[in-house]
Amino acid sequence: MQPPLKEASNVIEPFLLKEMAQRALSEDLIYGDRTTETLFPHPLPGTGSVIAKEDLIVAGLDLFETVFSILDPNVQLTRGITMGQMAKNGTEIVQIVGDGRAILKGERTALNFLQRLCGIATLTHQFVERVSGTAVKIVDTRKTTPGFRALEKEAVRLGGGMNHRFHLGDMVLIKDNHIALAKGIVNAVKQTRAALSHPLKIEVETTNLIEVSEAIKSEADIILLDNMPISEIRRAVAAIREKSPSILIEVSGGITLKNVEEIARCGVDMISIGALTHSAPAVDISLEITPQ
Amino acid sequence: MQPPLKEASNVIEPFLLKEMAQRALSEDLIYGDRTTETLFPHPLPGTGSVIAKEDLIVAGLDLFETVFSILDPNVQLTRGITMGQMAKNGTEIVQIVGDGRAILKGERTALNFLQRLCGIATLTHQFVERVSGTAVKIVDTRKTTPGFRALEKEAVRLGGGMNHRFHLGDMVLIKDNHIALAKGIVNAVKQTRAALSHPLKIEVETTNLIEVSEAIKSEADIILLDNMPISEIRRAVAAIREKSPSILIEVSGGITLKNVEEIARCGVDMISIGALTHSAPAVDISLEITPQ
Amino acid sequence: MQPPLKEASNVIEPFLLKEMAQRALSEDLIYGDRTTETLFPHPLPGTGSVIAKEDLIVAGLDLFETVFSILDPNVQLTRGITMGQMAKNGTEIVQIVGDGRAILKGERTALNFLQRLCGIATLTHQFVERVSGTAVKIVDTRKTTPGFRALEKEAVRLGGGMNHRFHLGDMVLIKDNHIALAKGIVNAVKQTRAALSHPLKIEVETTNLIEVSEAIKSEADIILLDNMPISEIRRAVAAIREKSPSILIEVSGGITLKNVEEIARCGVDMISIGALTHSAPAVDISLEITPQ
Amino acid sequence: MQPPLKEASNVIEPFLLKEMAQRALSEDLIYGDRTTETLFPHPLPGTGSVIAKEDLIVAGLDLFETVFSILDPNVQLTRGITMGQMAKNGTEIVQIVGDGRAILKGERTALNFLQRLCGIATLTHQFVERVSGTAVKIVDTRKTTPGFRALEKEAVRLGGGMNHRFHLGDMVLIKDNHIALAKGIVNAVKQTRAALSHPLKIEVETTNLIEVSEAIKSEADIILLDNMPISEIRRAVAAIREKSPSILIEVSGGITLKNVEEIARCGVDMISIGALTHSAPAVDISLEITPQ
Amino acid sequence: MQPPLKEASNVIEPFLLKEMAQRALSEDLIYGDRTTETLFPHPLPGTGSVIAKEDLIVAGLDLFETVFSILDPNVQLTRGITMGQMAKNGTEIVQIVGDGRAILKGERTALNFLQRLCGIATLTHQFVERVSGTAVKIVDTRKTTPGFRALEKEAVRLGGGMNHRFHLGDMVLIKDNHIALAKGIVNAVKQTRAALSHPLKIEVETTNLIEVSEAIKSEADIILLDNMPISEIRRAVAAIREKSPSILIEVSGGITLKNVEEIARCGVDMISIGALTHSAPAVDISLEITPQ
Amino acid sequence: MQPPLKEASNVIEPFLLKEMAQRALSEDLIYGDRTTETLFPHPLPGTGSVIAKEDLIVAGLDLFETVFSILDPNVQLTRGITMGQMAKNGTEIVQIVGDGRAILKGERTALNFLQRLCGIATLTHQFVERVSGTAVKIVDTRKTTPGFRALEKEAVRLGGGMNHRFHLGDMVLIKDNHIALAKGIVNAVKQTRAALSHPLKIEVETTNLIEVSEAIKSEADIILLDNMPISEIRRAVAAIREKSPSILIEVSGGITLKNVEEIARCGVDMISIGALTHSAPAVDISLEITPQ
Repeated sequence: MQPPLKEASNVIEPFLLKEMAQRALSEDLIYGDRTTETLFPHPLPGTGSVIAKEDLIVAGLDLFETVFSILDPNVQLTRGITMGQMAKNGTEIVQIVGDGRAILKGERTALNFLQRLCGIATLTHQFVERVSGTAVKIVDTRKTTPGFRALEKEAVRLGGGMNHRFHLGDMVLIKDNHIALAKGIVNAVKQTRAALSHPLKIEVETTNLIEVSEAIKSEADIILLDNMPISEIRRAVAAIREKSPSILIEVSGGITLKNVEEIARCGVDMISIGALTHSAPAVDISLEITPQ
Repeated sequence: MQPPLKEASNVIEPFLLKEMAQRALSEDLIYGDRTTETLFPHPLPGTGSVIAKEDLIVAGLDLFETVFSILDPNVQLTRGITMGQMAKNGTEIVQIVGDGRAILKGERTALNFLQRLCGIATLTHQFVERVSGTAVKIVDTRKTTPGFRALEKEAVRLGGGMNHRFHLGDMVLIKDNHIALAKGIVNAVKQTRAALSHPLKIEVETTNLIEVSEAIKSEADIILLDNMPISEIRRAVAAIREKSPSILIEVSGGITLKNVEEIARCGVDMISIGALTHSAPAVDISLEITPQ
Repeated sequence: MQPPLKEASNVIEPFLLKEMAQRALSEDLIYGDRTTETLFPHPLPGTGSVIAKEDLIVAGLDLFETVFSILDPNVQLTRGITMGQMAKNGTEIVQIVGDGRAILKGERTALNFLQRLCGIATLTHQFVERVSGTAVKIVDTRKTTPGFRALEKEAVRLGGGMNHRFHLGDMVLIKDNHIALAKGIVNAVKQTRAALSHPLKIEVETTNLIEVSEAIKSEADIILLDNMPISEIRRAVAAIREKSPSILIEVSGGITLKNVEEIARCGVDMISIGALTHSAPAVDISLEITPQ
Repeated sequence: MQPPLKEASNVIEPFLLKEMAQRALSEDLIYGDRTTETLFPHPLPGTGSVIAKEDLIVAGLDLFETVFSILDPNVQLTRGITMGQMAKNGTEIVQIVGDGRAILKGERTALNFLQRLCGIATLTHQFVERVSGTAVKIVDTRKTTPGFRALEKEAVRLGGGMNHRFHLGDMVLIKDNHIALAKGIVNAVKQTRAALSHPLKIEVETTNLIEVSEAIKSEADIILLDNMPISEIRRAVAAIREKSPSILIEVSGGITLKNVEEIARCGVDMISIGALTHSAPAVDISLEITPQ
Repeated sequence: MQPPLKEASNVIEPFLLKEMAQRALSEDLIYGDRTTETLFPHPLPGTGSVIAKEDLIVAGLDLFETVFSILDPNVQLTRGITMGQMAKNGTEIVQIVGDGRAILKGERTALNFLQRLCGIATLTHQFVERVSGTAVKIVDTRKTTPGFRALEKEAVRLGGGMNHRFHLGDMVLIKDNHIALAKGIVNAVKQTRAALSHPLKIEVETTNLIEVSEAIKSEADIILLDNMPISEIRRAVAAIREKSPSILIEVSGGITLKNVEEIARCGVDMISIGALTHSAPAVDISLEITPQ
Repeated sequence: MQPPLKEASNVIEPFLLKEMAQRALSEDLIYGDRTTETLFPHPLPGTGSVIAKEDLIVAGLDLFETVFSILDPNVQLTRGITMGQMAKNGTEIVQIVGDGRAILKGERTALNFLQRLCGIATLTHQFVERVSGTAVKIVDTRKTTPGFRALEKEAVRLGGGMNHRFHLGDMVLIKDNHIALAKGIVNAVKQTRAALSHPLKIEVETTNLIEVSEAIKSEADIILLDNMPISEIRRAVAAIREKSPSILIEVSGGITLKNVEEIARCGVDMISIGALTHSAPAVDISLEITPQ
């Protein structure tokens, strides 16, 4: 069965996509496209074929299409695949029929979006595959490209991952630097608990077993084990599960495709990975234009 | 001797940096920072120390600092290193003295910028090192993060690379898709030459020796050899140098740290690499806050 | 003891306040202030005194001050009272010393902000007072002035209330219209639970006891009793507490200063009130300018 | 006979309405609508019925409709009533047929606009009714919600009121604080008269009979009687009408539905009321969605 | 005696000037200034001297200075002359002391503003001089550069002219095209009079004596004689003055420095001239930079 | 044969034109059009005819049309002539069929754009005609209206001219003020050459024969002769052609329709003229509306 979100479209509203696409196009087209406008002064019916050049999970297709709709309101876009699906090397992801000049002008901007977002979905998918035998959830972070957080987090979902908080206002996460400045974990959790109406889950970052033990006492809802060795993770999990079975456990720091499964098997609930968004390499996608 | 650009600051005007930083901060702070504002209702003098956790070339420091200046107008920022220099693992890149709450709020946004831009400069530097025995220039592309082209191209310069065109209006580059839609390379070059006042250099992309030969006939100023095998690159270079020694030769496509030197030794002038900007992984940098 | 948030300042970042203030000032000053500029062509040292003309809770002072700082960078602002405190009728809230022309130009815009936000804080405070003998929390809604949600929600906090969700992306709230379109409450809760990583609390709106009973079955974290008569609220609370003591109970709909205490005494956890933000009347505040 | 403006549409241009609606929607949808997108991944034909839950004057319908047109370009909107008309309790104001997901996402934002603007028109209408036996005009002020002045002033017109000045550049109004800083009313009026080309009417605010007498001497075109007791208003009117019958007389300050008629009967021309825009409570309007 | 407005500064608020200057600078500096940043990587103390190369009236100095303040927050600007004064050929208008690199980068943008706005003030001044023996006022139109209306209208005032309406919402002007679509002048004036609260002056454009006669009947406050020959203007003035001495008379169309005095002597009140803003040639101003 | 660019449309992307048009319309319509909305509350089918009132070259038609498309999405626009063509006095440039109210509201804004841009194209055309017997190219400068550079440079091209650089980042031009601050022309050229990847042409401004001789030595690609007398231009050309035949020669400063041909006959390559954009008078164009 296909999970429902994988077929979703327009999770980010089209008017927001349009703003992003226009800002990006402005960088390239503020003074026109001297090559295209000089070579092709007349409308030029053409077809653009967008092909996966490696196996990848499709994300960002809405934004990709928005670029061409802005440049040619009559463009026809036919998807060969749904967002969230894997496009095997050679698959046609989408076909663009319209004014070839618009396709030429938008090609680079549209691919810049698509290759990055598919890259994120694809890397997320690889992590999700690695932990498929477990109940662990692969989760993103706020280590996103400035201005593209909502989109990159959607790409993570399309890759099968789930989202950690979106911004500094929608959850409490007491991190190492907060603890360094505050007077103890227990006190910090109480202070934030008192200020929040709906008992939102409060999460505390810990870096060693002493902090874990304080975090348990603090009645935090989620405990984040940051950059701990596997053996320490195991001991932390044991301690938490024993004292407070309802607390959720998240791990972060130094997660790779190699070690993610072993960490997952420690019995944690979530593994959050900054690299999903800050270091996913662009995937290889080509756009070839032919005259009609 | 230090090349002059490496010491430059403010290549991107501060008012433009401020716009970028504010847009990024808005994503995180549109509804406040519930953790920090709840834990620390009063000013909280603190010091943030930004440390390279691996060897890296510094870029993006202006923008990084702008984030904190927006959140705390009285912040004091002391650089431990100049942009364009290598920060060895453990080096303090910059020290931030100010309201610890501002440091907490800006940490993620500022690091998102810094880690990406240092990543680009560092990867560029690695390519530049590989070809250091040659006269070849390492050049970027328009495969940049939408909205950050000027900054990412500055990072390439700080890494020792040079910039290809900035936008579609500042040069003519007749690419594969233009050629597919036009009536021959020779004709295309003539058409654009006629429309341009100052005889800007016109570049033509070629994918095989037949196209190279047409490009030579077209009197293009620069010939781009795209995705050719090494042997073909060598034959193309020989053909061009023989017929038209003043034509510049650029290579692109499939360039890696492994093959860049061999390609450079083919006698080309420039090697352009999309990965510099689209796939540079974020470098590891930490920010630790201590109370004053 | 003063709760910590009451003394907080800058919960909304100054750069965001500046944007709001500038947008508002543009409405008034896009073509200048013909009266002031004609009467007073020269700098005109003056003092503005901002006086509460009725008892009120202070909110919005940061934004109020921002208006004058934009119009006169040298203005001196001295607060007579902290945000979140009650200013009795006659209290000087803040004194403005600067160019009288800037005070004249900014007066209306600044008061428009201040009177509305103090109005919200004051109305919230009245509701909070009414339920002071109970553990019930007074909570806002998304019925805010477009463009001012973060500010109006801060005013609610300053009045002693707490915030419901900020936007459609930071919590799940399955309302009457969702239920009308979905296939049952139980199914709806499950579907959203499956798509969310960190088990965020999921809330379901109910309008009668049958729906309440379904909501209990659905294992929702919070049940909202909307527009129910007091007797039905009591029966719903009893049913929920019996079956599932950890579920939080929220009431909304038709809440007034008259009936809020009786509802609070039904044993619910939260009472959410749209009127806090959509119908709080502006409080009376004067600004009198005297020459220096 | 229907006054012409009551049937007007698009007084505020659609492109400006679109900007306002998009800014408001961004607050709610910047990170998507997790409830709706999770429950309903597929298009969901639905009908929304917008019903007046009390007697009200309709305003803001253009903006209300704009919200849904942005979220669903194919939405069909059928008005049950014209702007400026009274919708009796139970009247269907407008019917929305389209993707139920768009209706769910836009509901709150659209109602926030509609309830506030109808509230202003309705309150204005109540004041206008009270003075219907007189020639007095009910007029608004600049005490509007920042960013919505044009819209709120249109709502006042739709309620049967008229508009005072729109911004500080379109009329001269010498207020108490100007007078406090200037050298006398007579001098102030002359100074502004000299600087204005088309002899725009110049208005002077007065707070007692001495100032009224100066204002008459100053040859101001309009005299504003601010916060005077009824008896003083009567004497001021008598003095002005005797000396200078062409001067217009405006009253402001402390106007309520109770005292407005008595003031109107003093023989003034205009009564301006800040509460029309700063304290009109939101009217009750429901939106119910049914599947198609 | 110097009229007061001539000494005014900041008629357009600095934050609005900053927005205009930043938008303009973005056009030039979006990708940096390759010449300056390459030649001068280090701070470069310099002095810029701005010299009038012909006699001109100074306007736009605030905006000119804003450009440099943006690029160099420490710049020192010393005016040699006040706005609204005549700078004789050779006069130093302003001296700029700061980072020479900022002066180089801002030079063109700042001069583009200054030369245009001084051009408008200077042309206005020439018209005002021509009619100096009369009571006629020289007035501008809405034929301004898009985005710069407020500034260009300020330049007109600085040149001694006065402003016609600022936008379509601040006055009624029934023009030829309105009349072509409406049912007669008399009816049109009545219709607008009924919809306006404060009896704003209503102006009607006429193109022949029949329309003038209708306009008189309509009780318009101002009659605009558009593109009439001198003899017809004289007859129109006579007719209006006879029937309705309080009506103001404006002339427009085909006004030149040659014919303006003759028209002024026909006894009209105002002469409006589109060329003041749409065709004023840029005046000659130089900026020379010397190292310190 | 028609040069290709003359038939081009959409050189500036429609979404950028829309932004410009909306910003301009906002100035006029922020508070509505009181005249039109009051006179014509109902849709009003009408036809607007746009007529050249003098011989002119058409430019800016895309933007002109955009204004009306924004105000009336159903407007029908029929061009009587192509951009880049000459419209003889009396020619209908474009016909507008739609809601007469939209035509009334947009008339002034649309004409402000059209008259300025046609003015630039027309003046450019006059210069181009003067040098038609030579190979000289007429070139613009950066002396453009802030915010409209791309459009004004397009108007120059439509008039038969060509474009100098677009912004400070797309070419090196070492001007008098750079030279004043640098250490000699030769050194300056070398410094910039070293920093640029693709050997972009580097241009040096010279004001006398000594500087010309240095510029030749510097191996600059283009030498600009600024404000030299004809005799000196001739000697400079001779010197350059003798020593370095491939260097391009540009002349600027004090160019008029009278002297341009004589300068062109000195054998230079390009003549750049600031007045094309900073002092082109608006051409006369009328818009007459008739009811349908």
